[in-house]
Amino acid sequence: MKVKNSFCMWFTGLPSSGKTTTAAALRQRLYDEGVTVIHLDGDVVRKGLNSDLGLSEKDREENNRRIIHVSEIVVSGGVPVLSSFISPFKKTRDFAKEIIPNYIEVYVSTPVEVCMERDVKGLYAKAKKGEITGMTGLDAPYEVPESPEIVLETTEHSLKDNIDSIVRYLTENDYLEETDR
Amino acid sequence: MKVKNSFCMWFTGLPSSGKTTTAAALRQRLYDEGVTVIHLDGDVVRKGLNSDLGLSEKDREENNRRIIHVSEIVVSGGVPVLSSFISPFKKTRDFAKEIIPNYIEVYVSTPVEVCMERDVKGLYAKAKKGEITGMTGLDAPYEVPESPEIVLETTEHSLKDNIDSIVRYLTENDYLEETDR
Repeated sequence: MKVKNSFCMWFTGLPSSGKTTTAAALRQRLYDEGVTVIHLDGDVVRKGLNSDLGLSEKDREENNRRIIHVSEIVVSGGVPVLSSFISPFKKTRDFAKEIIPNYIEVYVSTPVEVCMERDVKGLYAKAKKGEITGMTGLDAPYEVPESPEIVLETTEHSLKDNIDSIVRYLTENDYLEETDR
Repeated sequence: MKVKNSFCMWFTGLPSSGKTTTAAALRQRLYDEGVTVIHLDGDVVRKGLNSDLGLSEKDREENNRRIIHVSEIVVSGGVPVLSSFISPFKKTRDFAKEIIPNYIEVYVSTPVEVCMERDVKGLYAKAKKGEITGMTGLDAPYEVPESPEIVLETTEHSLKDNIDSIVRYLTENDYLEETDR
């Protein structure tokens, strides 16, 4: 496969909903098909580029602002981007949509009960014990996307099925095209 | 051509030395050869990602820190980066070398007299009139790279010759390889 039109696939959803897992698997699948994409992930970015930022509302906004601009730079340069960030607020996603060319919103719609059970980073447990506050899905809001391009169910469909349907979407919408390779 | 090992080519030099011109021409040349690279340019980055930063020493450092981390993210993701920034201080370039995989330093060694004559953005003229201060090459220092991988002469060699020699360097050092295409 090759890139026909560069794009940004923006994965939004609750903590432990499966954003990083899906984006990482999609990146690998595209790599295997000959397409290199950049994966920008919330946790990874916070270790380097945004290591100066905390979890205050102002810092979270700045975190998002930088990621949106980096996504824009890379997509404009012709390289697809997968961005996996909780991004709970509509205004953040609207800004991303405004700034980033070919923005594709993917809502990873895993129910909060399932996310709490998975609790990959143990954050829900900590929040329930009162050790942390401002946990999206518990005591901080998540504004469900109103018109995402793709809604992913991670409980009813397998990871492989979800990746298949994303690749189909990208091909049908002229972002990727088949090659002879 | 295709990418064998991703890399970051870091263009450093005085204002108006030819960093952006060389990087942009190299990007186009590689694109024509089938290789997509991301060009991070000082002036462009300051309009988006780093639009919150001024020209104080602290802000310039933060400007560089962010660019270095973005370069790292993109190169680590398998996509080559061309970074064109004055980056006058050795400590900044040393940090870039430490953080970014396959960092290749390119010193654009145009003499200051020639840069002042070109004065693409009219900054030298402003500085000479005292309208701005802290102009690299006039009243702010530029620490000449001690052991850059490549030194470019933009007065004695044509842009095309410089691009040719850079592409040769990238091929000979296993960053790029020929394909049948």
